[in-house]
Amino acid sequence: MKKSALQKVRADYQPKLPKTLQGSVKLKMGAPTESVANQDEIKALFPHTYGLPVVEFEHDDNPVRVEEPFNVGIILSGGQAPGGHNVVSGIFDGLKKLNKENRLYGFLMGPAGFINHQYMELTAGIIKDYRNTGGFDIIGSGRTKLENPDQFDSGLKILKELNIKALVIIGGDDSNTNAAVLAEYYKNIGADIQVIGVPKTIDGDLKNEWIETSFGFDTACKVYSEVIGNIQRDCNSAKKYYHFIKLMGRSASHIALECALETQPNICLISEEVLAKKMTLDNIVNYICYVISERAKMGWNFGTVLIPEGLIEFIPSMKDLIAELNDVIEANQAELDLLTPDEKLEKIQGLLSPANAELYASLPKGIALQLSLERDSHGNVQVSLIETESLLSEMVAKRLNEMAEAGEYSGKFAAQHHFFGYEGRCADPTNFDADYTYSLGYNAAMLINSGVTGYMSSVRNLTEPSDKWIAGGIPITMMMNMERRKGEMKPVIQKALVNLNGRPYLKYASMRETLALNTLYQYPGPIQYFGPAEICDRPSMTLLLEHGKEI
Amino acid sequence: MKKSALQKVRADYQPKLPKTLQGSVKLKMGAPTESVANQDEIKALFPHTYGLPVVEFEHDDNPVRVEEPFNVGIILSGGQAPGGHNVVSGIFDGLKKLNKENRLYGFLMGPAGFINHQYMELTAGIIKDYRNTGGFDIIGSGRTKLENPDQFDSGLKILKELNIKALVIIGGDDSNTNAAVLAEYYKNIGADIQVIGVPKTIDGDLKNEWIETSFGFDTACKVYSEVIGNIQRDCNSAKKYYHFIKLMGRSASHIALECALETQPNICLISEEVLAKKMTLDNIVNYICYVISERAKMGWNFGTVLIPEGLIEFIPSMKDLIAELNDVIEANQAELDLLTPDEKLEKIQGLLSPANAELYASLPKGIALQLSLERDSHGNVQVSLIETESLLSEMVAKRLNEMAEAGEYSGKFAAQHHFFGYEGRCADPTNFDADYTYSLGYNAAMLINSGVTGYMSSVRNLTEPSDKWIAGGIPITMMMNMERRKGEMKPVIQKALVNLNGRPYLKYASMRETLALNTLYQYPGPIQYFGPAEICDRPSMTLLLEHGKEI
Repeated sequence: MKKSALQKVRADYQPKLPKTLQGSVKLKMGAPTESVANQDEIKALFPHTYGLPVVEFEHDDNPVRVEEPFNVGIILSGGQAPGGHNVVSGIFDGLKKLNKENRLYGFLMGPAGFINHQYMELTAGIIKDYRNTGGFDIIGSGRTKLENPDQFDSGLKILKELNIKALVIIGGDDSNTNAAVLAEYYKNIGADIQVIGVPKTIDGDLKNEWIETSFGFDTACKVYSEVIGNIQRDCNSAKKYYHFIKLMGRSASHIALECALETQPNICLISEEVLAKKMTLDNIVNYICYVISERAKMGWNFGTVLIPEGLIEFIPSMKDLIAELNDVIEANQAELDLLTPDEKLEKIQGLLSPANAELYASLPKGIALQLSLERDSHGNVQVSLIETESLLSEMVAKRLNEMAEAGEYSGKFAAQHHFFGYEGRCADPTNFDADYTYSLGYNAAMLINSGVTGYMSSVRNLTEPSDKWIAGGIPITMMMNMERRKGEMKPVIQKALVNLNGRPYLKYASMRETLALNTLYQYPGPIQYFGPAEICDRPSMTLLLEHGKEI
Repeated sequence: MKKSALQKVRADYQPKLPKTLQGSVKLKMGAPTESVANQDEIKALFPHTYGLPVVEFEHDDNPVRVEEPFNVGIILSGGQAPGGHNVVSGIFDGLKKLNKENRLYGFLMGPAGFINHQYMELTAGIIKDYRNTGGFDIIGSGRTKLENPDQFDSGLKILKELNIKALVIIGGDDSNTNAAVLAEYYKNIGADIQVIGVPKTIDGDLKNEWIETSFGFDTACKVYSEVIGNIQRDCNSAKKYYHFIKLMGRSASHIALECALETQPNICLISEEVLAKKMTLDNIVNYICYVISERAKMGWNFGTVLIPEGLIEFIPSMKDLIAELNDVIEANQAELDLLTPDEKLEKIQGLLSPANAELYASLPKGIALQLSLERDSHGNVQVSLIETESLLSEMVAKRLNEMAEAGEYSGKFAAQHHFFGYEGRCADPTNFDADYTYSLGYNAAMLINSGVTGYMSSVRNLTEPSDKWIAGGIPITMMMNMERRKGEMKPVIQKALVNLNGRPYLKYASMRETLALNTLYQYPGPIQYFGPAEICDRPSMTLLLEHGKEI
């Protein structure tokens, strides 16, 4: 592997650990816990791993050394997030610190490698090449769901064969839910395998009192904010385009909100607000047109609009339309298949209820076709294929034309579109994410050594300097409630959506009108690794605000 | 203006100057020059500014002080490029060094501000906020062409009113051509106004023996390479997508080539090579399919493809098709207007010559429609609207299906698309671009003080440390030849396309097969401002190779 100049130097960065993890550690047990909701159901489903205490590590002045050597397996599950490699190197260093004979195995390409017995041993030589780098390419990742007993049993075989005592699953809310199910299963069958989860999601939706942020969010948002800032400079130099910028985040708008706080765009839509206020597509288009026409009055025919990827699914009327479309197309498939696209659109429109027919007719033709033609393997409309940024700008252009004809608008409107997702998911971690993920991994090794199972690695107090961070473990069942998934009630970790009463949202909301009707862009610039701490080590604005700090 | 943490610290960076520009300078005259071609025609068109000598600055041990104070005007012309603000601050500092009473005026929103007398004085307080930042927002930029005597006369009025002695035009090849025309015009009418050009283009196509690189190229390529690197990490972690990445650069592929050297993608198309080898769209699709199928044999169904923005216009058969389409649509407009899109496609196909009809039929329908429906204000097909990245991936998908049916391919193919342009044009300049642009500006001030006109600011020897850089001026006429533009022969600065015998291309070509059939991605990471010099001050790989260095 030929390394870039930055990679070579960055490899030597030694991530910072919380003070309590430096040296020998002992476990402090907290009080027994309860799940966030549906306590009886969750308790019944997790008889062996429910109600466990929160645990915290303390410095151990009288360490009782040396444990037997043991082996650990890891799985990287789901989408990539910056810092995954440092979780791995943190676990590795933690294990080696406990006993030089300990071994670490990585299952390849996600849960599939565990189920199908594809793995590699991770040695010091291999780890060395991946310290402080982005990506999950050290062992690969995958989206296979680890959720049924056959898979658990198949995995158990390879764990036994490799003499593995504990499995670490690095993943999002679903993967950590599955980690809890697996922990319970192995406990139940007496398999003597610990399962530890590590909280990862760029989207930032795996978050609660104990998990202050999921790793990768900080880095990804800073990459997106860098390029958004660059686009805003361009926008404010050329003064002729509206840039519609879609950002990752299907189930929550944390990324869009963080980027808005970082870059101060003219508009940032927040899906959770759209849902709470039961906004229609029309409301959103009207709001954008209002801002554009007010700016035009000041001679400004340019601006920026941030859009969370999942927006469409948060618009109640669009959800209704999509639900009815699924039924209508399903019921009339044979007949529809014989029609040309134009005929199909007309036919479908006639079959929809009046409200949905009206909304359907108001959509740009390309979008309506997309909604009517492309179906996923379950026969459902593929909402994720809709280019929300183009949908909005097309509808905005149309509305502005109507306003111009009515004499209500006399500006110029031209749009550019962007979508940022893959650009940030595998960036080299910021110092914050590098330290945080290394600590999560190292801490996971200590949790394994302490014998617990069904826990998530937790490092907290993150807006303080890293030596004051608090390290420990949280029983995963504590974060669960029951939710309907594919028609069945399932125990799952509650997703953290943007809290409309939280400080990050309120901060943005308080600036919104000012940002819309002025040009107050901020330009965060690229992630820095070597400069002053206020540039290199600063946590996300979301985290700072959530901890009562100012930005 | 609320500044980001990085902006605050970066504002204090003091750009480095060539040693010869530190302190007092005197001018060393070289030999008279000739234009690169069409010497007689160019000489006839530029009787007052043809044949001037190359000039170079030297340290002046016996400076004859103090000149009368004078005023200077500047215009930012065309697309933004990182470093424009440092050209301005370099000119400002140079002027103030010469005489504290000197004043600098900026014309607003490009040449239009000059013609229409919209300007502002640039004071120390204003300049301070823009040092080392990206964008052209200090005074704005614009694309109005400054090319006719009415404009020159109108501009002259405001120059006289503001007592301006010299005008600096910061722009690309066209803007610098116009700067030469303006210099000649003012000389001819005895207006006593100097005109100095500063070489800017992200595309990198304003380049020759004297202008080693145009500013902004370094920064923009590093931003693009950062995100391409991130995408490649993702690609190599998830191992399930081909990423088709289109990059800025309509008239030359320097950006794509530089990014390929920086990131080592599996495929990088070079427009100049496509033209030289008279490749067809089919050839290109076949090549991509060859790489994909070879990779599939090794179990790799992922990869990256870099595509220069201008590719389509370099494919000879596509150029032919577009030319005939323009004629056919023009001649049959009335009839075509009555048809539905599908009927229109069929009709047009029947009207085309056999070779073009075949190519037209092979295009994805969406692209064919785009080519047939959207016309620019001159009635021409809008090639720039074609999403080349989608065109290629759709055609590749179709071909792979055919190959699969013929038993020649058994992989999986899924594509993601990206286009990077606005993401890099206004980034904060790298140390290289910050130093280079500041030096170009400072040097321009010294050229003005030395009394020359029709010169381009030139700072050379750029792969050496900045104190060894050579500063001086090049007569713009020297870079000119005659070319046909809109049917007329015009004097223009020769565009520098990728040289297929040059070291940057040959280096890439020598690695191409290896990069295609392996996975050797490089991850340059974000631009760094504070770290070791080998990371922060490194020039582009193109420049290093062109100067005989290794990368």
